[in-house]
Amino acid sequence: MTVSEFDIIERYFRRQAVQRDDVVLGIGDDAAVLQVPADRQLVVAMDTLVAGRHFPPQTAAFDIGWKALAVNLSDLAAMGARPTWATLSLTLPAVDEDWLEGFASGFFQLAGQYQVALVGGDTTRGPLSVTVQVHGLVASGKALRRAGARAGQRLFVTGTLGDAACALQALSAGHSVAPDRLRRLNRPEPRVEFGLVLAETGAAVIDISDGLLADLGHLLDASHCGATVWIDRLPAAPGGEAGTPPGVLDCQLQGGDDYELCFSVDAGQVETLTRSARRLQVPLTEIGVIETQPGIRCRHEDGSLYTPSGTGFDHFRDVAND
Amino acid sequence: MTVSEFDIIERYFRRQAVQRDDVVLGIGDDAAVLQVPADRQLVVAMDTLVAGRHFPPQTAAFDIGWKALAVNLSDLAAMGARPTWATLSLTLPAVDEDWLEGFASGFFQLAGQYQVALVGGDTTRGPLSVTVQVHGLVASGKALRRAGARAGQRLFVTGTLGDAACALQALSAGHSVAPDRLRRLNRPEPRVEFGLVLAETGAAVIDISDGLLADLGHLLDASHCGATVWIDRLPAAPGGEAGTPPGVLDCQLQGGDDYELCFSVDAGQVETLTRSARRLQVPLTEIGVIETQPGIRCRHEDGSLYTPSGTGFDHFRDVAND
Repeated sequence: MTVSEFDIIERYFRRQAVQRDDVVLGIGDDAAVLQVPADRQLVVAMDTLVAGRHFPPQTAAFDIGWKALAVNLSDLAAMGARPTWATLSLTLPAVDEDWLEGFASGFFQLAGQYQVALVGGDTTRGPLSVTVQVHGLVASGKALRRAGARAGQRLFVTGTLGDAACALQALSAGHSVAPDRLRRLNRPEPRVEFGLVLAETGAAVIDISDGLLADLGHLLDASHCGATVWIDRLPAAPGGEAGTPPGVLDCQLQGGDDYELCFSVDAGQVETLTRSARRLQVPLTEIGVIETQPGIRCRHEDGSLYTPSGTGFDHFRDVAND
Repeated sequence: MTVSEFDIIERYFRRQAVQRDDVVLGIGDDAAVLQVPADRQLVVAMDTLVAGRHFPPQTAAFDIGWKALAVNLSDLAAMGARPTWATLSLTLPAVDEDWLEGFASGFFQLAGQYQVALVGGDTTRGPLSVTVQVHGLVASGKALRRAGARAGQRLFVTGTLGDAACALQALSAGHSVAPDRLRRLNRPEPRVEFGLVLAETGAAVIDISDGLLADLGHLLDASHCGATVWIDRLPAAPGGEAGTPPGVLDCQLQGGDDYELCFSVDAGQVETLTRSARRLQVPLTEIGVIETQPGIRCRHEDGSLYTPSGTGFDHFRDVAND
């Protein structure tokens, strides 16, 4: 092998497009130095993607680079934070220059979209794995939390649910998957701009990465309340499966990798939010209501209860979903 | 498996000792929220340890937890930054509660020593690997850099060199290793306090993680100058091998994992620094001089040149050192 760690950093990760004035010192020293404005708080999130677990082995390098950043930006979106900087730890079994070129292109395409500067990280050899930490800024005291939902508030999700999980199921079964579905799995679009809108409302917010039931469950636990979810209203991708056969509903309720936002707001804020969502072209669907009674009740339109087959994705407990 | 990702976080990583007022929101939401003082800049470093590459497979969990944080704190030390917060991504092949208990104990023991709060991260399943990002603070404009060394400045290192590499060589050859040598490999002590002292001097600084020659080379490249290193003066651990047989010198020059600081300062600052080092019980050794001519010249006391067998550790190029 003739390419060194330093060559990799120089060739693929230093020639990035995004330059920011608040990067005092970027890649190339023992650490990066960054300027946080006095009236802002720092928001940080870190997520790891492991080959064969968080993405199928055949996933294109471009998509892995994109997704490693996207899943982290989704966490910032759920906090109402504006993304600023990222660090990247890339563990590779060997140096493959085509792969690196693709990975860097995917990472930087998304980074450019949100003006995120890559400021540091690590490259090392080992089983393929990518860890990204993103940094963002919020006005002091304005970060959105999972806690704070109150009985009577209306429950919403952005976008559509279950697309990524359906695509993954189809792939695993050896079926072909339409490009727009595959895109939902491989190149999720974090709801950053809509998160900034939500930051004005003080909504209780979580991003859906482990499935609606699991993540809504976290929001409700943090808020010490419960909810009814109207399962016939759950948004599915247009042009997909007609109706809601059981497999699709399971994906909508329990599938991972949606990277949509789930939030609860007072009725008085719905009209403004709906207008903002329309302006940003973010689909918004009201899926339920916050209640005092703990737990999630899934109901059909006629009020009858639906019992889901599980509660969502867990990297250590579940195998079926991996 | 009955232990979930959330259980792991609750049981092992949330019950940490360090509480800080500047953690607005810690573990348990989509991201952490942190308060950076108006007169400080944020310093961030990220390093990954992969099993079998950065530590021998038989390494105790406690030591892995300690070292994963230590190598990052060493980067902050080289910037003259005071550590504040960390995030941790832990990839585990399976849930082993004894292992997790040991890992968390090692991580938090060192974190407590420097008042570092764990504020977030990720746990997932896969080949054993640990990524830590540390955050620190410096007075605005005071971060130490690799750049800035000038011809005529005196070149120093903290502590002793090559201990970890010698220990690793002995282990790999099936020899027993004295506990204090093993400790240098498994529980490096980052030079955080001395880094804070250096921050007052504006020295050019780097931490030695990939070997003296490699890391001094980075400092010199960044500073556009060169150096002479007096190899007979390189500090070795007391009570180790007598004299400097070739293997030990190679470890001192090229061995990784020292986590000592290498820096160059003006002659006028040496006396004050020496006093501070004594107060902190940090051994300080003058090993050479900065020169205009690029490159590193290794010399014996009689002035004769010594040609090292290599230039240092590289995770992608070297195999022998892995």
